[in-house]
Amino acid sequence: MDFSSKLLENAVNEMSQFPGIGKRTALRLVLHLLKQPKEHTQKLSQSLQLMRDEVIFCKICNNISDRDVCEICSNPNRNGEIICVVEDIRDVMAIENTGRYRGHYHVLGGKISPMDGIGPGDLNIISLVERVKSGNVKELIFALSSTLEGDTTNFFIFKQLETYTINITTIARGISVGDELEYTDEVTLGRSIVNRVPFESSLKST
Amino acid sequence: MDFSSKLLENAVNEMSQFPGIGKRTALRLVLHLLKQPKEHTQKLSQSLQLMRDEVIFCKICNNISDRDVCEICSNPNRNGEIICVVEDIRDVMAIENTGRYRGHYHVLGGKISPMDGIGPGDLNIISLVERVKSGNVKELIFALSSTLEGDTTNFFIFKQLETYTINITTIARGISVGDELEYTDEVTLGRSIVNRVPFESSLKST
Repeated sequence: MDFSSKLLENAVNEMSQFPGIGKRTALRLVLHLLKQPKEHTQKLSQSLQLMRDEVIFCKICNNISDRDVCEICSNPNRNGEIICVVEDIRDVMAIENTGRYRGHYHVLGGKISPMDGIGPGDLNIISLVERVKSGNVKELIFALSSTLEGDTTNFFIFKQLETYTINITTIARGISVGDELEYTDEVTLGRSIVNRVPFESSLKST
Repeated sequence: MDFSSKLLENAVNEMSQFPGIGKRTALRLVLHLLKQPKEHTQKLSQSLQLMRDEVIFCKICNNISDRDVCEICSNPNRNGEIICVVEDIRDVMAIENTGRYRGHYHVLGGKISPMDGIGPGDLNIISLVERVKSGNVKELIFALSSTLEGDTTNFFIFKQLETYTINITTIARGISVGDELEYTDEVTLGRSIVNRVPFESSLKST
């Protein structure tokens, strides 16, 4: 791609470093900025930079926060005896949106994936083990995605905590609410029968 | 969407103002920045702001440039007697990439589209008429997209220039090189037969 302006080229190159954004999309986005008032670009770049420089990761659960301890960890109405282990902050947001969970979280920051060079040391696993060691935790809920990497990570953490007397559970896999039985894959359908639950439990909150 | 950090929320809101980028995609992009070193975000926001503040539109053709007069308009080896009228800078880049055009351009900045509130006054049409009036222009090539808006814009400019003795042409519509005849829509196929060209002309440059 030949650009008529070096400034434009630099901006496009920077924008195209986002995952899933190629040169053409980046150009479209940057040209959009040119059609907007200058203040718009100023606000955008300032908010990105401020976010990157000032955002804090909760020192307990590693969730993104504006304070040392995030709102969930510091909320006295939430149950600190249950920790839900998730991959990243988007999973926290998704579970929070359900309004069905009142425990704490632990954000790992990824999954063990040797293919991508991510080992246990790159994730927030040690701090999770420390939280369990501290003695207040009664249950750990694994909510990683059910891929090879997710299962590996679950198993690694499970092994680390074998000697502690806590419940380790995993979120239920089954047929999505509203989905048709006949179109569900066999693994999911099989699991949903093996792991069937008492009818009245579908009304509970944790 | 509930965010655990106000800074994150602001950044996501700003990112989601780009066309085609929703809140979820914006969050994915912003979280990507958090995984990169701080310098990365700094470079990104600086290059965007610098581009927005410093970029110049060529005072002749309105192409994006780092100087008052763009490289194409100031290139003595290019033919200023031919002007190719395009919608935006991406079209200039596309035509330049072909390497088959050695004339000048005129970037309108859009198409006449009453539905979107874009009238002739919002486009760089007056400056185009001025360029023709100056007397050096022999041919105008319309290269707008063949939509209702593109045709309207072409016709509007054509009407403005009726009294001047210049050639007004439009880029050829026809079957894309490599496409199969049988799958081409009727309008395109019909036009490509009506506007057939001498065989040897497919080898020329302008």
